[in-house]
Amino acid sequence: MKRNPNFAKVSGRYFFPEIIERKKKFLERYPEAKLISLGIGDTTEPLTFVITEALMRSSAALGTRQGYVGYGPEEGHEFIRQKINEVIYKGAFSPAEIFVSDGAACDIGRLQFLFGQNCHIAIQDPSYPAFLDTPLLSSGQKVTLLPCNPENDFFPDLNLARDADVLCLCSPNNPTGKAFTFEELERIVAFALQSKKIIVYDVAYAAYVQGKLPRSIYEIPGADSVAIEIGSFSKMAGFTGVRLGWTVVPEKVRYESGEPLRPDWARIVSTFFNGASILSQHAGLAALVEEGQQEIALQIRHYLDNITLLKQSFEDAGFETYGGIHAPYLWLRLEDKTSWEAFDELLEKVHIITCPGCGFGQEGEGFLRVSGFASREDVHKATERLRNGVLAIR
Amino acid sequence: MKRNPNFAKVSGRYFFPEIIERKKKFLERYPEAKLISLGIGDTTEPLTFVITEALMRSSAALGTRQGYVGYGPEEGHEFIRQKINEVIYKGAFSPAEIFVSDGAACDIGRLQFLFGQNCHIAIQDPSYPAFLDTPLLSSGQKVTLLPCNPENDFFPDLNLARDADVLCLCSPNNPTGKAFTFEELERIVAFALQSKKIIVYDVAYAAYVQGKLPRSIYEIPGADSVAIEIGSFSKMAGFTGVRLGWTVVPEKVRYESGEPLRPDWARIVSTFFNGASILSQHAGLAALVEEGQQEIALQIRHYLDNITLLKQSFEDAGFETYGGIHAPYLWLRLEDKTSWEAFDELLEKVHIITCPGCGFGQEGEGFLRVSGFASREDVHKATERLRNGVLAIR
Repeated sequence: MKRNPNFAKVSGRYFFPEIIERKKKFLERYPEAKLISLGIGDTTEPLTFVITEALMRSSAALGTRQGYVGYGPEEGHEFIRQKINEVIYKGAFSPAEIFVSDGAACDIGRLQFLFGQNCHIAIQDPSYPAFLDTPLLSSGQKVTLLPCNPENDFFPDLNLARDADVLCLCSPNNPTGKAFTFEELERIVAFALQSKKIIVYDVAYAAYVQGKLPRSIYEIPGADSVAIEIGSFSKMAGFTGVRLGWTVVPEKVRYESGEPLRPDWARIVSTFFNGASILSQHAGLAALVEEGQQEIALQIRHYLDNITLLKQSFEDAGFETYGGIHAPYLWLRLEDKTSWEAFDELLEKVHIITCPGCGFGQEGEGFLRVSGFASREDVHKATERLRNGVLAIR
Repeated sequence: MKRNPNFAKVSGRYFFPEIIERKKKFLERYPEAKLISLGIGDTTEPLTFVITEALMRSSAALGTRQGYVGYGPEEGHEFIRQKINEVIYKGAFSPAEIFVSDGAACDIGRLQFLFGQNCHIAIQDPSYPAFLDTPLLSSGQKVTLLPCNPENDFFPDLNLARDADVLCLCSPNNPTGKAFTFEELERIVAFALQSKKIIVYDVAYAAYVQGKLPRSIYEIPGADSVAIEIGSFSKMAGFTGVRLGWTVVPEKVRYESGEPLRPDWARIVSTFFNGASILSQHAGLAALVEEGQQEIALQIRHYLDNITLLKQSFEDAGFETYGGIHAPYLWLRLEDKTSWEAFDELLEKVHIITCPGCGFGQEGEGFLRVSGFASREDVHKATERLRNGVLAIR
């Protein structure tokens, strides 16, 4: 067998393993160093009480004849699709338009099977790596990059996407922390409606939005005929290890021929996926009941307070910061340094691990992403180290 | 956006929903009918004690600061990769060659990203639908069908696959129940070695093999340089709802260029997947410890006894039966009837749901698959109805 030529189109190494490698080498040199990780965006707070209880209850049930459940519908059990529709979308959809997944990244991958190899995709640069890698690896589709930087307030020039079939957007953005305003999102939806594009809208961080900004693209009238929305329990409720997400494909979203995409997505999901774990689905339900919502609101508050403290601290240390208000991420612009140079410097001087911006695309070069997913203790330590600079460390 | 032309290459409807539809219509006509489902191959016995306990323990741990775990490695935690290697493969591999998944079907799908659109795949006919649908839907790859029927003892004519790059095989087979002998598997491996093909070997039902037959392709010398093996906890330990599987990609398996496939598979897994649920991984570990193995052996014995009873019963009722010895499935050859005609007749006359063989490929037309995944009570009722025929029903 010959190697699939698509592998040559992506960088050989996903950049998170490179971070782990550099961390390992550093610890070999300084085994006594107390590293603080503000790198990979991984939740650190334990699951809430209501969610933990739901997991234990559904675990116990699977060990009983009455409670045992095997295969569920590939697109998720009715109970969780109903609840997502009711709580997240105020009942705007039917459960048949909501597909439960094992996480947003996995559905971004499966979407490539829906789009096919002739599809032209426009993505934000920087963006979550799966948005670029999955079309390139699946069939080498044409991808257009839409630069997002402080100069354009992280709002892409939509004209660059005029030849694309699909427009992938993420708000609040990973990695920049930018959240679209109503006005911005209206422009995007109008553009897609007018030029008949499909929008793939990633709202994995929607729970972090503060105040009067849209949390879903469907808050914009007309969006339900152009947009597919991808949501996740990972950062909303600490499910990074539990695994649960969803994708909304409204019946009104159509191909040029006028036929709906939804049945084709159902075919993809039932062929390439066999359903999220029944345990994760029960845990997701618990996160969406009233008590669960109250609990996870506190958790999100915790991470947002972390990022507020870090934003202040990095600014005091002289960094130009973006994001960190409607998202658990800070986006630091560097002076005269590449992302990896600054990564290494923070690692060496203050023993803080960050995420090099260049891992999110060429527009990310010269930036660092800082995550608020940490314990408060670690955040305080990090701010202290930043205040004292190199002296306090070694 | 135009519809992806690959959708035209597969049948519009996956056939399991069609079974559910016919069942629903039947129940509308006869709401009092007590149906017995021997259709979809879905486990029915509750999770064993050791597995249930592991699930409850890891659920509780996620609710504590010390026990909380977020993202794990996409390819699975070291503890479960180690244990699969140790228990299933007697330590023949390194953990880096074992990739933990959320189930075999999902990895069959992701394998299409590895192979790419220029790959020519040969599959058994009949076969598990994902083997045909995933290459067609992913990029319309060329697929060659290898007929397996009573005339060739369900052993494919390998010459038909001489132009293929990849040879997909499943043993014990779903749906036919055929398990390859050592001699047959040696012929397959020799063929692949000689003609430089990659074998994808599905052992989802390996735990059902009785006596001296291979449970893994790696029992054949040399197979570790040509074969990728896909395993699953679904039918081995009742994980159809829990979701856990694995894929072995030995470092020795190479492209024509001499380069290993393993790093590319690692790239696919880390891009298109975000790890199996941590809960499922702990449950899988419990299934592999000694006590867990003893428990699941009893469960497998239960399903095998079911299929033995059903095999006798269908034979007494005049059916020509295959399989049902090393697999939880019977494969019934029909006289003068199509699969759906026989499906409808069994539904109407004895209120038993089976699986039409034509759903597994054109060679499956004229056959029915009967599953042993049922309670013993239902199996006894089914045998009774088959003995008494139509009269006992209505």
